[in-house]
Amino acid sequence: MKLPKLEEDSVIEVLRRDFRRIDPDLFIGIGDDAAVLRWGGRSLILTKDLLLEGTHFRTRWHPPELLGRKSLSVNVSDIAAMGGDPRYALLGIGLPEKTEPSWLESFLSGLKAAAGEEGVSLIGGDTTRAAVITISVTLLGEAQRIVPRNGGRPGDLLYVSGTLGDARLGLRLLKRGVGPGAGSETDHLLRAFLDPRPQTALGRRLGALEPVSAMIDLSDGLSLDLVRLCRESGCGAEIDLGKLPVSAQVREFSRTPYREALHGGEDYQLLFCLRPEGKPRLSELKKEFHLTEIGRMLPGSDVRVIDRRGRSKKLEHRGFKHFSDAKK
Amino acid sequence: MKLPKLEEDSVIEVLRRDFRRIDPDLFIGIGDDAAVLRWGGRSLILTKDLLLEGTHFRTRWHPPELLGRKSLSVNVSDIAAMGGDPRYALLGIGLPEKTEPSWLESFLSGLKAAAGEEGVSLIGGDTTRAAVITISVTLLGEAQRIVPRNGGRPGDLLYVSGTLGDARLGLRLLKRGVGPGAGSETDHLLRAFLDPRPQTALGRRLGALEPVSAMIDLSDGLSLDLVRLCRESGCGAEIDLGKLPVSAQVREFSRTPYREALHGGEDYQLLFCLRPEGKPRLSELKKEFHLTEIGRMLPGSDVRVIDRRGRSKKLEHRGFKHFSDAKK
Repeated sequence: MKLPKLEEDSVIEVLRRDFRRIDPDLFIGIGDDAAVLRWGGRSLILTKDLLLEGTHFRTRWHPPELLGRKSLSVNVSDIAAMGGDPRYALLGIGLPEKTEPSWLESFLSGLKAAAGEEGVSLIGGDTTRAAVITISVTLLGEAQRIVPRNGGRPGDLLYVSGTLGDARLGLRLLKRGVGPGAGSETDHLLRAFLDPRPQTALGRRLGALEPVSAMIDLSDGLSLDLVRLCRESGCGAEIDLGKLPVSAQVREFSRTPYREALHGGEDYQLLFCLRPEGKPRLSELKKEFHLTEIGRMLPGSDVRVIDRRGRSKKLEHRGFKHFSDAKK
Repeated sequence: MKLPKLEEDSVIEVLRRDFRRIDPDLFIGIGDDAAVLRWGGRSLILTKDLLLEGTHFRTRWHPPELLGRKSLSVNVSDIAAMGGDPRYALLGIGLPEKTEPSWLESFLSGLKAAAGEEGVSLIGGDTTRAAVITISVTLLGEAQRIVPRNGGRPGDLLYVSGTLGDARLGLRLLKRGVGPGAGSETDHLLRAFLDPRPQTALGRRLGALEPVSAMIDLSDGLSLDLVRLCRESGCGAEIDLGKLPVSAQVREFSRTPYREALHGGEDYQLLFCLRPEGKPRLSELKKEFHLTEIGRMLPGSDVRVIDRRGRSKKLEHRGFKHFSDAKK
């Protein structure tokens, strides 16, 4: 194998090519939100995320209880994006010498609360000393029907759940020293970043909806995650910037709310493709969930965005994440 | 929950108590080498280990290829200790900005080689930027019969595989600046630390042997891991220091070879209990594997060691690992 640059997506590409094996039990391997096995006639969805102090969070602004919640939630989001239900978690945790027992207690208390809400049991893990707080959650789930990243086809309609860009604004506020309690608008934005809520109930319902052909969770921003969805599906796409769902809070705190919605990461909302004939059935779901049609899948490989003046342009994303990029 | 001190074992105890759930699919939860689920009629063994730069390894003495191997091997060892076979791995990896692509290539090449030898497929994971190299492997396996930690009974005989203390001596040599190539004796010790070989074949065979009642892998040293085995089994034990298997290399490089064998960590050998009636069947296995009877399980909770002068004393272990202990 040869790695020209340490870009996340190129590393994943190399891993995928290099570790490919013929395996009748392996339904989905490297490159989706989660891996999927057939195990004893049941589906088994597996995902894991690293959360590292200094890269993904800072203790001075992330209350340990919310960090405990988020450590589980970001993994639950990956399972939801497959149309699945989370079931069991393993926790690997590395702590620096100076960590207060009370910090760990609050962290575990938050993790436990989120696990209870999501119906997840913690069944094992690993503890160790570390230079910075190091959190590695592995989550297992299952689904009646798996919704992969690669099922999108030209003509499919593109939808997103919730609103986009809130977490990015929340992070910006934290960097400026704005903490919880400064107002309900800022609290909404802070919470979007500090305590994102995975779309488990929606993911399960979309999994049960046959015309939903492909799905991904929005962890790195719509612009990048849409490109990934398109690449996996072998299609292009066109989305309409003006249709992106933006909260009143993002409008209030940003002069470029649609840019925030397009490029902001960590929203943990769902982006999915729907065969056009599924529209009537989706309208049922729209009564319960906030869903917005933002564009459609196209032949080819171009991913385009119609700007607010109606001009269609190639979608610029911030580039595949480089290992050297400071995420925060 | 209340954590008086950040000791690994007390944290695990709190997690176990606090996260206990009634779950018919959960066969073994927190507190064993690995968790075990029943999933679709098959067993599903799950384990994960964090390997952190500065805590578990140093790049200046750990060649990336061997580190890739070890990242998988330490997890394989946990599955072997349940009597299982490893099947699928997920890799979470965090890399600092300065990491050379060639380092990652070698690391992955080692990981791939070890995975091939063990019949493991890499099916997913996570990549991110990090302050220090952060490796988190999750491994799935299965077994026909699970050998837990808690199956030991008074009267069971205690056995270990291989030789003990080699890895500890290897680490000591590395700290003194001795590298590979200085001689076949030192190379043996270095390799024990840098590239431990998990006892997969032996673990599988012991799993098939009904009189094998309990098993644990020796990652933190015999003195500590034996106490864990006894505590889980609700027994005491007595081992004979002079019977511990010690390599010629450890004898040559240490003035206290039996101390190294008793307290040295990272051997990744197997410690197991055998019902006495199983002895004839074990002697078959002894033709293929290096196995040594070192003592027996006793009623009560005392764990004792007979020293080289024939005196029985309470076994002193180095204490449950504190998060603030420098492991290396």
